[in-house]
Amino acid sequence: MSGHRRLLVTNAVLDGEPVSLTALDGVITAIGPDAGSGAAPAGGPDSETLDAGGGTLAPSLINGHTHAAMTLFRGHGDDLPLMRWLKEAIWPVEAKLEPDDVYWGTRLACLEMIRSGTTGFWDMYWQPASTARAVEDAGLRTAIGPPLFDAPDLTFEERNRQLEGWLDELAAFGDRITAVVAPHAIYTVGTASLEYAVGLAADRDLPIHIHLSETEGEVIDCVEAHGMRPAAYLDSLGLLTPKTTLAHGVWLDREELELIADRGATVTTNPVANMKLAVGGVFPYPEAARAGVPMALGTDGAGSNNSLDLLADLKVFALAQRHDAVDAEAIPIGEAWAIATGQRSELIAGLGRPSLPASDPLTVGAPADFIVLDPATPELGLGNLTSSLVYSATGSAVKDTVVDGHILMRNREVEDHEEILARARERATRLGLS
Amino acid sequence: MSGHRRLLVTNAVLDGEPVSLTALDGVITAIGPDAGSGAAPAGGPDSETLDAGGGTLAPSLINGHTHAAMTLFRGHGDDLPLMRWLKEAIWPVEAKLEPDDVYWGTRLACLEMIRSGTTGFWDMYWQPASTARAVEDAGLRTAIGPPLFDAPDLTFEERNRQLEGWLDELAAFGDRITAVVAPHAIYTVGTASLEYAVGLAADRDLPIHIHLSETEGEVIDCVEAHGMRPAAYLDSLGLLTPKTTLAHGVWLDREELELIADRGATVTTNPVANMKLAVGGVFPYPEAARAGVPMALGTDGAGSNNSLDLLADLKVFALAQRHDAVDAEAIPIGEAWAIATGQRSELIAGLGRPSLPASDPLTVGAPADFIVLDPATPELGLGNLTSSLVYSATGSAVKDTVVDGHILMRNREVEDHEEILARARERATRLGLS
Repeated sequence: MSGHRRLLVTNAVLDGEPVSLTALDGVITAIGPDAGSGAAPAGGPDSETLDAGGGTLAPSLINGHTHAAMTLFRGHGDDLPLMRWLKEAIWPVEAKLEPDDVYWGTRLACLEMIRSGTTGFWDMYWQPASTARAVEDAGLRTAIGPPLFDAPDLTFEERNRQLEGWLDELAAFGDRITAVVAPHAIYTVGTASLEYAVGLAADRDLPIHIHLSETEGEVIDCVEAHGMRPAAYLDSLGLLTPKTTLAHGVWLDREELELIADRGATVTTNPVANMKLAVGGVFPYPEAARAGVPMALGTDGAGSNNSLDLLADLKVFALAQRHDAVDAEAIPIGEAWAIATGQRSELIAGLGRPSLPASDPLTVGAPADFIVLDPATPELGLGNLTSSLVYSATGSAVKDTVVDGHILMRNREVEDHEEILARARERATRLGLS
Repeated sequence: MSGHRRLLVTNAVLDGEPVSLTALDGVITAIGPDAGSGAAPAGGPDSETLDAGGGTLAPSLINGHTHAAMTLFRGHGDDLPLMRWLKEAIWPVEAKLEPDDVYWGTRLACLEMIRSGTTGFWDMYWQPASTARAVEDAGLRTAIGPPLFDAPDLTFEERNRQLEGWLDELAAFGDRITAVVAPHAIYTVGTASLEYAVGLAADRDLPIHIHLSETEGEVIDCVEAHGMRPAAYLDSLGLLTPKTTLAHGVWLDREELELIADRGATVTTNPVANMKLAVGGVFPYPEAARAGVPMALGTDGAGSNNSLDLLADLKVFALAQRHDAVDAEAIPIGEAWAIATGQRSELIAGLGRPSLPASDPLTVGAPADFIVLDPATPELGLGNLTSSLVYSATGSAVKDTVVDGHILMRNREVEDHEEILARARERATRLGLS
């Protein structure tokens, strides 16, 4: 068995019962009261043991939409609405970004995600190889979409060559990195570019990630330009498939939700960023659930959130749904938890790779991606655990984080923590942000 | 100087500069680059030293409205709207409460507040001496209002005698406990009882704490019964004074806000509980700010929140204001922070005691109630600190908590943590809740 990576988790709890867990080469091989017996790693560089200290095992969180490197921009232009925030605060700084800015901004984001129990995320950002390198170094998983934008400074062909070059670069990374085709939005990408994106995704068998229906103005403009609402417009271009995820979806109507459900595309809601940017609505979860739309939860970038603590956002997601529907039964607790952990979209859970399963994490054969909850967390001590995870806990309730069978956080300690903070601060200072 | 209590905080940061802080008998005596020189405590039982480890000093949070003991009820009846939650989930359990349930429920609440940087809270609950004892043991400050309810099982005189007995019990506690007259709400307390409450508060020079305008139905019923909206009705009874705090205020209109501002009463908003119970609105902060209403932020009970992490709720407060106003400029960051730290209501900051100052915490002469932020918190590492506190941090960013010159949390360690969890779990189990 030499050459294999082994993980043993002892002294853990699942469904209130003591369990152990073993993993081989990043896949769970046993979980149960006797899972650890006879399976103790022999020690050595390729075997790790985690004493869960009586903590409960739980599925990890999957962030369905973010821009990791933008963690550097936290607090920049805080009091601005979406379009002014982009044009006055963000785009001028992005014009100055160097690869090391993207790398350390992403390392900071990964540090925050590891500390709050997120093990995989869907990213959309420039200089994607820097993001990929940071994610590889951090040990997380990501599906990265370098944005496709209609920019006046490049021809259609030049821009496409740049994008294809980025996708080639991403393909050279390991299994934890997936390349994604990411047309930015229908208000920044014309019909010809969207058609090109559909073809490119089909040719390379890649997922598509696009912002959709974030503001009402986007819907009005789409109807005016194309005679269709945004989802119908995307569908007319062949863009709605089971490998497509739509970020936001605040202004989707019932007909659009039924179309999306029929095509099997996913909607990723980002309630905190939507509220912070004051877009005026929230994703219509109750209608989407009735239509059977696959769903995920995202933070959006820390530049517009301003955190990446998906457990905190999960509470805001449920609160915003109850508030907007004026209905305390608007979203069942178990569904909210399933959405945040990627269990309501195969595409999201698998980070674009069919080899990763969508649901039933914490079972034999599933990737060894999970968290251990701190048993000393007062907020998790009473009543129903799922309710406490949704409504009481924040990311600090996570004690240990494991991805692909590697222990990325042990007793809240993450490798390189201090260096990441220092380097991110340097990069932010260089950009005039800190 | 024997008999005096001394505190020395070393290695701290304020406004980006290294500082020390000293306190004598719970009052800050010096703060600045050289504050610690020559003032080192002599050691011994009445002197404490806190190494802030390079962490930034910040004002602590004041929770303007909660029901601490209800932390035991966390997750009970989670998916119910307000009236069904009260009648079906809460009131049946409350009928079974013993003093030790209230004591350990409150200790659990205090543990969570200390861990998230809250040093004082306005409470409204039964068996107030048990709450007071728990708060004294925990080391926090509280203003406690045993609720005044029109109950069919007691006569007017019996009920009043019970309340006055509770207030007498509270008066026997130390300086960190203030008694409050707390008529529950206009829908549970009739006019005669409200008039009695006003007289009682005046006789004993106590503050008044009442729920007001939490649901729209309450407003409709009030107009129907009294021909006035709720604030005007309270004012007609003499209940609106600078020593009155009104919890919720979701449905207050402009005229009511101007009346409240004119009378100097405070409104405490509880956005998370309002959204969770789906009352259909949020406190109209922009109008209240224009009218000049004193304001505070509360969690409400952990039974309906379901947490007591006021730093997390501060973000939801700001998000909900931006969302409901569809205006990213709806609430300035600095104002949100000032409200959460009690700096926008003398009544709230002082916990009903004129001796405690309302604003300018962290100055000489102010109570030695403050927090130290963990310098390793990634969410606080970049950009504007106040913005990060409002939009990025949760309570786990707090490293040390000091109240009245006593160190209640040091490096995230709180005394009796494990025992409190275990005893609270026992009490919840006894009540059939866990």
